[in-house]
Amino acid sequence: MPLNPPAVGRGGTAPLMPASGIRNERDAIMKISIAKLNDIPELCELLHSLFDQEAEFIPDQQAQQRGLAEVIGRPDVGDILVARDGVEIIGMVNLLYTISTALGERVALLEDMVVSPSRRGQGIGSTLLNHAIRFATERDCKRITLLTDGDNEGAQKFYMRHGFSKSAMTVFRLSLT
Amino acid sequence: MPLNPPAVGRGGTAPLMPASGIRNERDAIMKISIAKLNDIPELCELLHSLFDQEAEFIPDQQAQQRGLAEVIGRPDVGDILVARDGVEIIGMVNLLYTISTALGERVALLEDMVVSPSRRGQGIGSTLLNHAIRFATERDCKRITLLTDGDNEGAQKFYMRHGFSKSAMTVFRLSLT
Repeated sequence: MPLNPPAVGRGGTAPLMPASGIRNERDAIMKISIAKLNDIPELCELLHSLFDQEAEFIPDQQAQQRGLAEVIGRPDVGDILVARDGVEIIGMVNLLYTISTALGERVALLEDMVVSPSRRGQGIGSTLLNHAIRFATERDCKRITLLTDGDNEGAQKFYMRHGFSKSAMTVFRLSLT
Repeated sequence: MPLNPPAVGRGGTAPLMPASGIRNERDAIMKISIAKLNDIPELCELLHSLFDQEAEFIPDQQAQQRGLAEVIGRPDVGDILVARDGVEIIGMVNLLYTISTALGERVALLEDMVVSPSRRGQGIGSTLLNHAIRFATERDCKRITLLTDGDNEGAQKFYMRHGFSKSAMTVFRLSLT
């Protein structure tokens, strides 16, 4: 009998990474772990497919390698979670840590949520996001914030299904390059 | 003759903090420096006036003290800049540092931009924001991202006057408390 995906954990005590792997809705076995430096080439491919699709970002492999190495090498900056089917990486999500002066606590930014294009529609993203929520909770984060394209209704519905609410705040950016 | 406010610096070489202080548009002398732990009580008052006004936040002094102490005590997390007229703190802005996997570089989140209610309309916010942009540039940040209330047209125009562009991305949040 397939296990259910891990519940959206908020201070729950379930073990973070069951040794047996996680079965998602369509019965694919996947294991989720923290990315290592030697995962970077595969993660770059996943990021390429993401930035290719997002309106505001242009894929740049060297930049992605540098950024991934910074996050993977510095656990205080963030953690990248990778989903694997066997040895193949089939999804990733990036949790970056910062401090909220409003909450007085650690909070996370969730970025780079992406499933390998050939493996979409199998519930992998859902399993990975639930895992990331539980992971952030266990890392003492009191809030997760993410940005998604304003016209990407599919992504917005996906995040709302997982408990996220649309904020009334608007994003502004200034490039310093 | 009053000096102009510091230009929006992008890799410029002007000194970060002129010893003489900065004159803003209406000729008030202000000095901008990095916040110290003993600034926290005054910064809490400023944050109170900000969170009172923002739709998504509720002022909580103990939380604010904790959050400010975390940022001030850990320069890798961020820097809080304070504007002073004499000894009085008249404005603040918080720069939190993280890594962009898209740019492969350090980027900043700008939060808690607030001028003392009795000192608004004197160009203090403008001077402080220009200073924060230059400060982030000198700290090797390649982008600044900020969130502001979607219905706060005044704030949005303020940021656009300083070079920020409205992003097409939408904010989603999940509370983990």
